[in-house]
Amino acid sequence: MRIIGIDPGLRRTGWGVVESVGNSLRFVASGTVTSDSKAELALRLRQLHDGLAEVFAQFSPGEAAVEQTFVNKDAVATLKLGQARGIAMLVPALAGLPVAEYAPNAVKKAVIGVGHGEKTQIHMMVKVLMPLASFNTDDAADALAIAICHSHHRQSARVRAMMSSL
Amino acid sequence: MRIIGIDPGLRRTGWGVVESVGNSLRFVASGTVTSDSKAELALRLRQLHDGLAEVFAQFSPGEAAVEQTFVNKDAVATLKLGQARGIAMLVPALAGLPVAEYAPNAVKKAVIGVGHGEKTQIHMMVKVLMPLASFNTDDAADALAIAICHSHHRQSARVRAMMSSL
Repeated sequence: MRIIGIDPGLRRTGWGVVESVGNSLRFVASGTVTSDSKAELALRLRQLHDGLAEVFAQFSPGEAAVEQTFVNKDAVATLKLGQARGIAMLVPALAGLPVAEYAPNAVKKAVIGVGHGEKTQIHMMVKVLMPLASFNTDDAADALAIAICHSHHRQSARVRAMMSSL
Repeated sequence: MRIIGIDPGLRRTGWGVVESVGNSLRFVASGTVTSDSKAELALRLRQLHDGLAEVFAQFSPGEAAVEQTFVNKDAVATLKLGQARGIAMLVPALAGLPVAEYAPNAVKKAVIGVGHGEKTQIHMMVKVLMPLASFNTDDAADALAIAICHSHHRQSARVRAMMSSL
């Protein structure tokens, strides 16, 4: 099963695709979709949409996970993030995929074992869990962490289902 | 020129289409796209997308205007609105349309002459400006007000352009 993790942002939206086979995780690809900060908002949202749609066409993920971001900054920043996040949720939904949402501390817990930690720790653990993983931005690394988090949650859900059927 | 006004909301997104011919405004259609509040967020955003895309396919507007909403409520509410607003901006952008944004008081000023006023006053003036207008929700009426606001701004811009070319 291919899983795409998405870390939404109006300026930069990170994405990471992993393949979960049994108990193992394999890195597929990662990257960043950017929008032109000088362009009008609607066009920027379209740039994010088109970029993500291209990633979906190229890597055909079967499930998607998006970070559940809460900003405590001003309402304007939150609204901006919300708009970008709307696109990040819409693109997988248009492809007919279920979209899981994980809070930042759930992602941290899945990747580094605790619900708090520095960005650098998360990025290091992404490399430990998938030695072949490469990412050129923090957003792409965060997106891979979200995909890893989702694969762990799927795994636990499967184990629970197996246990209860015994 | 057909103009669509959109009043975004996750639960209900209002839309209104008007036709601007010279100095006159004609009501074309209005309505509300809803999302199933029991469904997952990504699916709800897809419902808004699909509903608006259908309106675009049916009425082929040439320009779009969306209310520039600022919520002073909690970050969660603002994020929700942002996500719906992202879809409201994306659908016209995907159709290749320019998307204008107007603050709520600009919409009020265009419709009732002043930058403040009750919802009921706005709805009454929508009926005065376009006697044939019909709307079954507040959101649809607000969307028509946004479309009217945009047609006034286009008109003034055209007059200014004509004056400066004399």
